[in-house]
Amino acid sequence: MANEIRPQAARASQASPRPLDDVPEMAEAALTLMHTPNSVQEMSADDIKRVMRWMRLVTYPAGATLLLEGDQEHTQFMLLLLEGEVSVDVSMATGMPPGTVPLSVVGPGQFLGDLSLLDGAPRSATCTAVGQVRAAALSLQAFKLLVQQEPTVACGLLLGIAQRTGERLRALSEQLGMYARVVSDQHATIEGLRAGSR
Amino acid sequence: MANEIRPQAARASQASPRPLDDVPEMAEAALTLMHTPNSVQEMSADDIKRVMRWMRLVTYPAGATLLLEGDQEHTQFMLLLLEGEVSVDVSMATGMPPGTVPLSVVGPGQFLGDLSLLDGAPRSATCTAVGQVRAAALSLQAFKLLVQQEPTVACGLLLGIAQRTGERLRALSEQLGMYARVVSDQHATIEGLRAGSR
Repeated sequence: MANEIRPQAARASQASPRPLDDVPEMAEAALTLMHTPNSVQEMSADDIKRVMRWMRLVTYPAGATLLLEGDQEHTQFMLLLLEGEVSVDVSMATGMPPGTVPLSVVGPGQFLGDLSLLDGAPRSATCTAVGQVRAAALSLQAFKLLVQQEPTVACGLLLGIAQRTGERLRALSEQLGMYARVVSDQHATIEGLRAGSR
Repeated sequence: MANEIRPQAARASQASPRPLDDVPEMAEAALTLMHTPNSVQEMSADDIKRVMRWMRLVTYPAGATLLLEGDQEHTQFMLLLLEGEVSVDVSMATGMPPGTVPLSVVGPGQFLGDLSLLDGAPRSATCTAVGQVRAAALSLQAFKLLVQQEPTVACGLLLGIAQRTGERLRALSEQLGMYARVVSDQHATIEGLRAGSR
């Protein structure tokens, strides 16, 4: 299933069908969604528009795999979700039966694939379109040029990326706290059942 | 215990005892540790030195709390670990007995407190010095000035922060996958024990 749909992600990232600016309502959405309140320095509308010039509009049908966990090849782009929802899942540690852990369902405003864009490491999670999804894609090449040519604008974008990554890290820490609680509770249950059956 | 030691973190961040440059061996360590290979643009030694001018050297004794989970007040600084190890822990989701989940033990080169510096939200984890720790502190105020005055340098620093945050996010995803596996296995054990006792 994942393999069947996977080429969509690669195609979408490479073919870059339309500049984002060509679709006014999506450009408008990007302008709003890219704004990230932060402690350091917020991007001005003008700065956001400068980033948007480097972006391409990509569309994925429901069920399409935007990013595939472990993928080492298609890591040279990131996405800003503009429309629709995406399920983010990671595989469980080895064991039987194999399974996945749902991390979150994310919507417009979320960045996807930013980690691999920055470090070139394999994708850390699988992202699947829940319904139809529209997103703004930024390639590594465009990102490099932005850093070189417009460092102030790039700084703003990086602040937004770092901050949203931070939000995900916080959410994941909480999720881990909940799992740890369940492990602890189940452990007690198992001990109790074993004691009772002796 | 945490409350007793906590003022250290606040003091260290505010009093800013010594400029990092005053201690050559620590400046040397920072120069090496701040270098972060990445896909976009690596910081030059000169850029790293420009960041270091804004940093202060802080020292924590073994057992000191560098950052306290939930702290909303002392969020206006981040640390680059230069020497020693730090234990990073989060509290378990509500329940009895209360407990913490060890996330990781981190060493030189790790940034701590960068998330709250960027978004002003409460600290997401408690960081405790395992042995004596020396770190380079960067205040929010200094960071803002860096972004305004030297955006190219700030971009390099932000790339390093975003990338290391990404590494932590990846590690946490894996850890969550392992917990999910344990939860699943424990659930099967409980079902088996209950079936056996019927």
